[in-house]
Amino acid sequence: MTEPTSPSTGAETDAVLQALSAHEQDALDRLFDFLAIPSISTDPAYHQACLDAAEWSAGQLRALGFSATVHATEGKPMVLAHYGVGEISGPHVLFYGHYDVQPPDPLEEWDVPPFEPRIADDADYGKVIVARGASDDKGQVMTFLEACRAWIEATGSLPVPVTVLLEGEEESGSPSLGPFLQAYGEELKADVALVCDTNQWDAKTPAITAFLRGLAFCEVTVTGPSRDLHSGLYGGPVRNPIHVLTAILGELHGLDGEVAIPGFYDGVAEPSAEQREQWESLDFDGQAFLESIGLNEPAGETGYSVLEQNWARPTAEINGIYGGYTGPGTKTVIPSQASAKISFRLVPGQDPAKVIEGFHRFVEKRLPADCKVSFAGGEGSPAVGFDTTSASFQAAAGALAEEWGTTPISLGCGASIPIVESFRSALDMDALLIGFALPDDRIHAPNEKYNLTSFVRGARSWARILAALSKLQPGKSEA
Amino acid sequence: MTEPTSPSTGAETDAVLQALSAHEQDALDRLFDFLAIPSISTDPAYHQACLDAAEWSAGQLRALGFSATVHATEGKPMVLAHYGVGEISGPHVLFYGHYDVQPPDPLEEWDVPPFEPRIADDADYGKVIVARGASDDKGQVMTFLEACRAWIEATGSLPVPVTVLLEGEEESGSPSLGPFLQAYGEELKADVALVCDTNQWDAKTPAITAFLRGLAFCEVTVTGPSRDLHSGLYGGPVRNPIHVLTAILGELHGLDGEVAIPGFYDGVAEPSAEQREQWESLDFDGQAFLESIGLNEPAGETGYSVLEQNWARPTAEINGIYGGYTGPGTKTVIPSQASAKISFRLVPGQDPAKVIEGFHRFVEKRLPADCKVSFAGGEGSPAVGFDTTSASFQAAAGALAEEWGTTPISLGCGASIPIVESFRSALDMDALLIGFALPDDRIHAPNEKYNLTSFVRGARSWARILAALSKLQPGKSEA
Repeated sequence: MTEPTSPSTGAETDAVLQALSAHEQDALDRLFDFLAIPSISTDPAYHQACLDAAEWSAGQLRALGFSATVHATEGKPMVLAHYGVGEISGPHVLFYGHYDVQPPDPLEEWDVPPFEPRIADDADYGKVIVARGASDDKGQVMTFLEACRAWIEATGSLPVPVTVLLEGEEESGSPSLGPFLQAYGEELKADVALVCDTNQWDAKTPAITAFLRGLAFCEVTVTGPSRDLHSGLYGGPVRNPIHVLTAILGELHGLDGEVAIPGFYDGVAEPSAEQREQWESLDFDGQAFLESIGLNEPAGETGYSVLEQNWARPTAEINGIYGGYTGPGTKTVIPSQASAKISFRLVPGQDPAKVIEGFHRFVEKRLPADCKVSFAGGEGSPAVGFDTTSASFQAAAGALAEEWGTTPISLGCGASIPIVESFRSALDMDALLIGFALPDDRIHAPNEKYNLTSFVRGARSWARILAALSKLQPGKSEA
Repeated sequence: MTEPTSPSTGAETDAVLQALSAHEQDALDRLFDFLAIPSISTDPAYHQACLDAAEWSAGQLRALGFSATVHATEGKPMVLAHYGVGEISGPHVLFYGHYDVQPPDPLEEWDVPPFEPRIADDADYGKVIVARGASDDKGQVMTFLEACRAWIEATGSLPVPVTVLLEGEEESGSPSLGPFLQAYGEELKADVALVCDTNQWDAKTPAITAFLRGLAFCEVTVTGPSRDLHSGLYGGPVRNPIHVLTAILGELHGLDGEVAIPGFYDGVAEPSAEQREQWESLDFDGQAFLESIGLNEPAGETGYSVLEQNWARPTAEINGIYGGYTGPGTKTVIPSQASAKISFRLVPGQDPAKVIEGFHRFVEKRLPADCKVSFAGGEGSPAVGFDTTSASFQAAAGALAEEWGTTPISLGCGASIPIVESFRSALDMDALLIGFALPDDRIHAPNEKYNLTSFVRGARSWARILAALSKLQPGKSEA
């Protein structure tokens, strides 16, 4: 479908950037179509919407000239598409993003319906795109697709061979990813992966993420009496599972903010003096960070800065708790069960399975003899660190500096992107984590937004990065 | 509407009991109509159903010849009805019940829809009536109304002047009751109140409840960050309000099962040696009680029997807890808020307001400096004890013994009936707490039931009690 091309020139890149400018409104319309699909992967009620989002993405890729396939899995399908592989010279890149989104609740806290995207005026950023998934990850995915579209429109082809993989289970632990990488490893393997699911440093400063925490999660359910009971007729002699659960989880952290699970810190390396120094040079204002969300005391481990607590230290976080009557008013009940959803952010040296196992033991040890406990979940992925001196990292950094007029920052990220660890372990392939989101995009929260400048300049950034990568030797991108 | 009657005779009572037998199916049909109204007072969505239940009750009373009025309040209306007051001789009785019911959730645990009453076969009890409110309190209310119906059918009148008060906020703290008793005290004041909202001792042994725990409740909400946050991007330095809430509530009880709120036990009297002896003579099997609900260790205070823990010791119970993501799957969020619903069962000597105040201080003392806490609710009623030697108590006990062939037991009850304390404090009127429910009726829980024998013999019991009370002097019922 395409002719082999020579390494891209500056003039070519200029033409691509002009094509992006010329069709900005069309690009926004396409993104809005994508955002209107409520592809919530964690809630079975939205399964069809996830299928719709996969088909929509595949259709977009086909329209650009990609060969695109929607692969069914046991969960949500994978969208896999290729352009110029084996035809175009230059390093083969695998772009990864996800079409699924987090649940939008609490719905009543949204200023607009979460799946009716619109442009709003933001006091700090000017125009922003508001919708569930605007930033995480549909807006980011579309920056890359729009860059591809502009390259093809302006030059008739892409400057490097491109494979695109869009997943639909990123927000629900990626259960189908392992089997899929096993089955399609040969087809997926590229010289470098491009992952667009991370933040910039701030609205004016691009960033490449070099360090990601891992994630393990687990749901715990404590069962006391065999049925719900009236708290007057039974209260006193009867064990209340909410009491048991709160007493156990109330001991999850020590007085210095440390996680109290025995063995939790086994193998965790302290940040190096060099690393600490680099982070201190960022001039990050921890106090302002906390104040921006209504707090003023760091809640993590004593002796670590706010940035270190978020980038370099593991956590145990209760993401949800529920038991008994939670509706309006009162109900004097002793429930049969109480549950909590717990996730652990991990740093290099921690094994997700061992962390979950330690949590199980922590709970079981504190459980009264006549209560039962069950655990669900337990999936996880370890933390990842990258080589910031590789050729592809340097090429991408140079392209970002051209677009933004400032050197991108190599940063850590407290969040996990399981795909990155999977690419490394299953395909022996490193990734470049480049994203245009901002820390205050309210991802996973009501009124999620993506700055219009993130969308527009994100696409321009990818246009330049593809050009820069095309100048590298295939297979040498990690030299 | 009625002629003064002479004290009832044995022959009259027999005719009344025959009338009840003759119309058993009609009585059941009427109860089913009542049970089909989803009069959930704690949930604003069911306000109209509460109004419907009030009107339905008033209609039933009018059909019997009562003058009945539905009095609007700021919450749910009060149904107030009179028959023969100032016309019939004998002690004036005020019957109290409630037409509101608890929420039916969790709905998925019901074997039948909660507001589609039906007769089911129970392995232990034979035929039982299954529906929300079957036992608490619509079934119990209808035992009295059916007894009145039979008296009027068989004799043309009631044997004593009767006032009926049906409340619609018993399950939601009775906020309108105080003002209503203030406004209508003159009209409500009778020689003795009859309250039908309690249990028998077992399916063969009637009981009069002589001791009721009080109740105070409170909802606590802890606020940490000003909005929901991504647990990866923020986790570590950011205070999670679920952690704060579980840590505080995890300290609510000490190692010996005691409530750890300072001052909680101030003024609480130990059960007297005589009281302990009476309760021990009941041969209550605490172990079997616990095993019947899947437990085997008393969870209350060390040193007290299971019965004492339920009847004579105060409790602090978490009836509900919620925060963060509670839907299917996972959501890696740090929520802005976490909440819990707490209720306290009180014994004589405890002041509800002081207990709630102590809880507020307990929470506030443990709150991190940058979290906020708010409290809702805080209503309550103190515990109540009755004189088991009064004339009305003895008359009712005799009537129950005739119907059931065994002496009724004078028992304690761990639950609260706020009206009882209100009748005493506002109207200087004592109550007889006579009910036909059983401890395993699953009130406030899925598959609530009322034994058909409770319904049938409950009505017969009231028919006899009205006869027995008619032999007492007006105003002397408490001699």
